[in-house]
Amino acid sequence: MTAEEIPDIVIGRLPIYLRTLNRMMQESGKTTTSSQELGERLGISSAQIRKDLSHFGEFGKQGTGYHISYLIEQLRQILKLQREWKVALVGAGYLGHALAHYGRFETHGFRVAWIFDNDPAKIGEDMNGVLVQPDAEMEAVIEREGAIIAILAVPTAAAQEITDRLVAVGIKAILNYAPVSLNVPPHVHVQYSDPVLQLQRMTYYLNSD
Amino acid sequence: MTAEEIPDIVIGRLPIYLRTLNRMMQESGKTTTSSQELGERLGISSAQIRKDLSHFGEFGKQGTGYHISYLIEQLRQILKLQREWKVALVGAGYLGHALAHYGRFETHGFRVAWIFDNDPAKIGEDMNGVLVQPDAEMEAVIEREGAIIAILAVPTAAAQEITDRLVAVGIKAILNYAPVSLNVPPHVHVQYSDPVLQLQRMTYYLNSD
Repeated sequence: MTAEEIPDIVIGRLPIYLRTLNRMMQESGKTTTSSQELGERLGISSAQIRKDLSHFGEFGKQGTGYHISYLIEQLRQILKLQREWKVALVGAGYLGHALAHYGRFETHGFRVAWIFDNDPAKIGEDMNGVLVQPDAEMEAVIEREGAIIAILAVPTAAAQEITDRLVAVGIKAILNYAPVSLNVPPHVHVQYSDPVLQLQRMTYYLNSD
Repeated sequence: MTAEEIPDIVIGRLPIYLRTLNRMMQESGKTTTSSQELGERLGISSAQIRKDLSHFGEFGKQGTGYHISYLIEQLRQILKLQREWKVALVGAGYLGHALAHYGRFETHGFRVAWIFDNDPAKIGEDMNGVLVQPDAEMEAVIEREGAIIAILAVPTAAAQEITDRLVAVGIKAILNYAPVSLNVPPHVHVQYSDPVLQLQRMTYYLNSD
């Protein structure tokens, strides 16, 4: 089965399943669970969960459910998280600082290994153990190190230009915090972090008075 | 039709449709579009788009498609964006700074009107025109002003306690940046901003070598 055959929306749910399974283990020391229990915690139907997982194989048994540690292991393998991914962070402003100090990357398969900025005042600064490098060296470092994942924490006006430069030297996945839609070739994956979309999704439920 | 009848995943797509329609108008000055065109831009099937919109009424005509400005207006009404929502920001660290200076809130229906922190060094600081207030005054200000939306940019260890305090004084929607699952009553909506989930969703597509 190839990546093309599995809808991206299914892929998007796998990290959520993985996070929930990890929490179940930590909280309760449970060793097994069911699609019903997972579904209740997530507000997703058990049928949907079984269907999502069935794309990748047979992970549970009728009646006994899923072995949590086995399912975690399988999901980590499917999502290619059994290695550490080094990530290039572009932008060392307030948001870049927050991301460089984000405590959850390293326990979840990622490490901010390089930070770039074009502000001479920031270059050389130590951000959580990583020195900020001049963005003029960005391409050379990424090519030499073979980085393929980048986080974009730059101003809107710079986002497309930086993206073009990143893609040209082999970046294949971009988590973009700039509020702008990026033009990338089809082989490059982009995820957008957009607080406006998240807020607008909640106001629907609020009484406007 | 009540909110309960429409799946949350459909609600979650409406802001994406709205953003895309706004861009279509800005970029090209177009006045009409179709579910096909919208779908192509978003990687969503045209049938799904028509089905999503049909929950709320009849917005287009067979053959002529959608009037963009009318559909924008309707989506803004459905999402309750025809007013300005004042938002309370809790946490004035790096992330709080980045959010206070985020340029897209005010053109999209939101304004960070109050900022709270418990660090005496930050209290009184002017962040994009808003003074940081002591978190001890948080409850009084929120009650007095009738705020119902909050953004949480606090350390993980403080997130649940702050949430409990916010919910107790009437907050009904929380955008949470702390990497922790919040316990809230059913009437409170929470959205999570989690870069780990977004990165994990992309590594699936990467060659791990």
